[in-house]
Amino acid sequence: MIQARTLKGFRDYLPAVMIPREQLMETARTVFRSFGFAPIDTPTLEHLEILTGKGSDETDRQIYRFRDNGGRDVAMRFDLTVPLARFAAQHIGTLGTPFKRYHIAPVWRGENPQAGRYREFVQCDFDTIGTESVLADIEAVTVIDSLMQAVGFDAFTISINNRQILTGLLSHLGLQEKSVEVLRCLDKLAKIGREKVVAEMTAAADVSAAQADAVLRLADCDGDAESVLAALPGLTGGDETAAAGIDRLANIYRGALASGVSPDRLRIDVSIARGLDYYTGVIFETTLDALPGIGSVCSGGRYDNLAGLYTKQHLPGIGASLGLDRLLAAMEQLDLLPTAGKAAPVMVAYFDKNHRDDYLKLAKELRDAGIGTEVFHEPKKLGAQLKYADAQGFRFAVIAGETEWGGGRVQLKRLADKSSQEIPYTHEAPAALIDAIRAGS
Amino acid sequence: MIQARTLKGFRDYLPAVMIPREQLMETARTVFRSFGFAPIDTPTLEHLEILTGKGSDETDRQIYRFRDNGGRDVAMRFDLTVPLARFAAQHIGTLGTPFKRYHIAPVWRGENPQAGRYREFVQCDFDTIGTESVLADIEAVTVIDSLMQAVGFDAFTISINNRQILTGLLSHLGLQEKSVEVLRCLDKLAKIGREKVVAEMTAAADVSAAQADAVLRLADCDGDAESVLAALPGLTGGDETAAAGIDRLANIYRGALASGVSPDRLRIDVSIARGLDYYTGVIFETTLDALPGIGSVCSGGRYDNLAGLYTKQHLPGIGASLGLDRLLAAMEQLDLLPTAGKAAPVMVAYFDKNHRDDYLKLAKELRDAGIGTEVFHEPKKLGAQLKYADAQGFRFAVIAGETEWGGGRVQLKRLADKSSQEIPYTHEAPAALIDAIRAGS
Repeated sequence: MIQARTLKGFRDYLPAVMIPREQLMETARTVFRSFGFAPIDTPTLEHLEILTGKGSDETDRQIYRFRDNGGRDVAMRFDLTVPLARFAAQHIGTLGTPFKRYHIAPVWRGENPQAGRYREFVQCDFDTIGTESVLADIEAVTVIDSLMQAVGFDAFTISINNRQILTGLLSHLGLQEKSVEVLRCLDKLAKIGREKVVAEMTAAADVSAAQADAVLRLADCDGDAESVLAALPGLTGGDETAAAGIDRLANIYRGALASGVSPDRLRIDVSIARGLDYYTGVIFETTLDALPGIGSVCSGGRYDNLAGLYTKQHLPGIGASLGLDRLLAAMEQLDLLPTAGKAAPVMVAYFDKNHRDDYLKLAKELRDAGIGTEVFHEPKKLGAQLKYADAQGFRFAVIAGETEWGGGRVQLKRLADKSSQEIPYTHEAPAALIDAIRAGS
Repeated sequence: MIQARTLKGFRDYLPAVMIPREQLMETARTVFRSFGFAPIDTPTLEHLEILTGKGSDETDRQIYRFRDNGGRDVAMRFDLTVPLARFAAQHIGTLGTPFKRYHIAPVWRGENPQAGRYREFVQCDFDTIGTESVLADIEAVTVIDSLMQAVGFDAFTISINNRQILTGLLSHLGLQEKSVEVLRCLDKLAKIGREKVVAEMTAAADVSAAQADAVLRLADCDGDAESVLAALPGLTGGDETAAAGIDRLANIYRGALASGVSPDRLRIDVSIARGLDYYTGVIFETTLDALPGIGSVCSGGRYDNLAGLYTKQHLPGIGASLGLDRLLAAMEQLDLLPTAGKAAPVMVAYFDKNHRDDYLKLAKELRDAGIGTEVFHEPKKLGAQLKYADAQGFRFAVIAGETEWGGGRVQLKRLADKSSQEIPYTHEAPAALIDAIRAGS
């Protein structure tokens, strides 16, 4: 006998977890589509050369790679961005720009599994390729806002920044060559505090105390959005790149408000930098007000050139990635997950063998009315059937024996509180039952 | 520069293909759920030993396998049935029986790519595990019927048979030891004709002419379902196993009719055998009346023991698999696919820079009313915007310049026939525009 087990770092999704997971993905699809984004899919396996060297050394080490039966070096995708770059290089001529796509699919990384981290996980990305328009930036913020609300969150904050502002300041300070190191230090601000960041900048990037101070005064700038926007020119020494960046950030902020994003949920935060080096314009992070500690649940930004490794065509873009697993964990913690019940709400008890076809017909009538319904599989004792109904998370049981069928009625049992009501019912007139179920749902 | 290309046998899904594909999967999920099936997911990668030796030698050769960085022999799943068996062995204690699951996910086979066949494809399975109840069989037929209708087909035929009937006849003929060979020959009946099947049976299985004739007379039995059911006992020599099989088949047939399956769409066909050896009870195939040549688009059946390799627990089951790609190809051929347009139906032209925020607000109002809407990304010439709208497959363009905004109206252009109408519109009163779009959809 072979031991039934999954690989380390991989997991099965049982219905209780998979139902809300699937709902979340459907919600995301609905929101993406409502903004004109269209789905694509790309192969799980790519030529190895397409995938290596596009992320960090760490990502490279984590890639699942092998030689296939045809002797090709192949690899499983580790994100959806590199495949998108390859895809765009190949198809952008057919698709035209701007190309707005979403992609919800698993990716694989052979990293050491930690609590809550797996070697296989789903990414949920949307991007607009081939335009530098500020409208695409505004739209990205609006998509995130709609997505979070559609998923069921009221209290969240989308923080936006523009990379150009800091880039401009660094250039003004003569530090443009050291921007990667400075950014890396700055990224730790929330974790290690101001003093240690200054120390690290001085040590790692050979930055003077005055320079570090200027950078940190920019990062410290806080308050309501319009005040921050007003203060930023002074904090960037009048640098032109910074000024353009501030102007664009203001533009995005005000456009997002016009698109219906509540000012309570939108914040300008010049301290966020995002680790990835390829962001060049607006960047955003999304935190849950009730659980700031779990980090950003939806992040992204504008990049200058998506597919430079595969095509000479300049393809700027903007996009973000929804952290599906992190969001699900948060929803669970905040009790925002629907109780993991059956996907169908109604179980018809199989009570009287002579009426089997009547149960089947009743179930069809409910399904035709859009009410998911299952007939219990065997004419067991009612107690056993109701136990199954409880365990599976049905919301209602419909019960009818000889008496009920003869009298033109059924019993509708609400499983949460065990209450029962008699409903007039015949195959010719199922409406009262349908109404009662709808009213009780 | 790295050449942007996909691996042989793999493919990208562009929006025009992915939109209907995604719709089809959503329809399938909705139907599965309405019958009380719940989603699960399993890892793409499994321990190699879990996957090998469960299909045919051919499947084994086609498995993508490799050694991971931790030195484990791993493999990519080649179907959803073997992972389900492993899953059931591991979790059935928690889940209880009957366990009704669906699973829509990609699988990988390194077979030689032919026209229309790929090394990565999506399977769409539903199964009920842990019950021998005939209700589960009836339900499976009803699910297939609902699925086909939900997808958009009117004219299709679900053929059902019961393996026990032929098994009974073979036992009656003293051929029980040769059933695999006989089945294999019989499976070719439609392809090579009666005479050649007799010849093959005689040669390959050492079956006498009289025995072959008895088998083929059974397979030839045709006509309306009730006549076939009446003729079958005579054709199986009164064998008890066969008699039980006929009884159950009749039961399934009549139960499916009670569940609302139209008799026009349900056929008893004792000639179907299904290649796979593990089916032990009812089996079914689904063909499109307009395209019988493409073969079955949804097939399955009852099996005696799902997970015998991983657990001592006896787990009978019944299930079927929807041939997603075959169905999509058929829908395309029959013009049943929705014209591959944008997921969002409305494009708002970005006409007058001073009114940018008005366009954004208008788009939000439409989205809030459930109408997918995109604002064109730049204030380009109207011609260029409408060209994009046409190419992308939007159905409507909303156009408003200074005059329109001043006059409290917008132009609604229907892109299919280039017709335009003026609609009264303000941010305070968007209802007329919403109604006009709904009416024209």
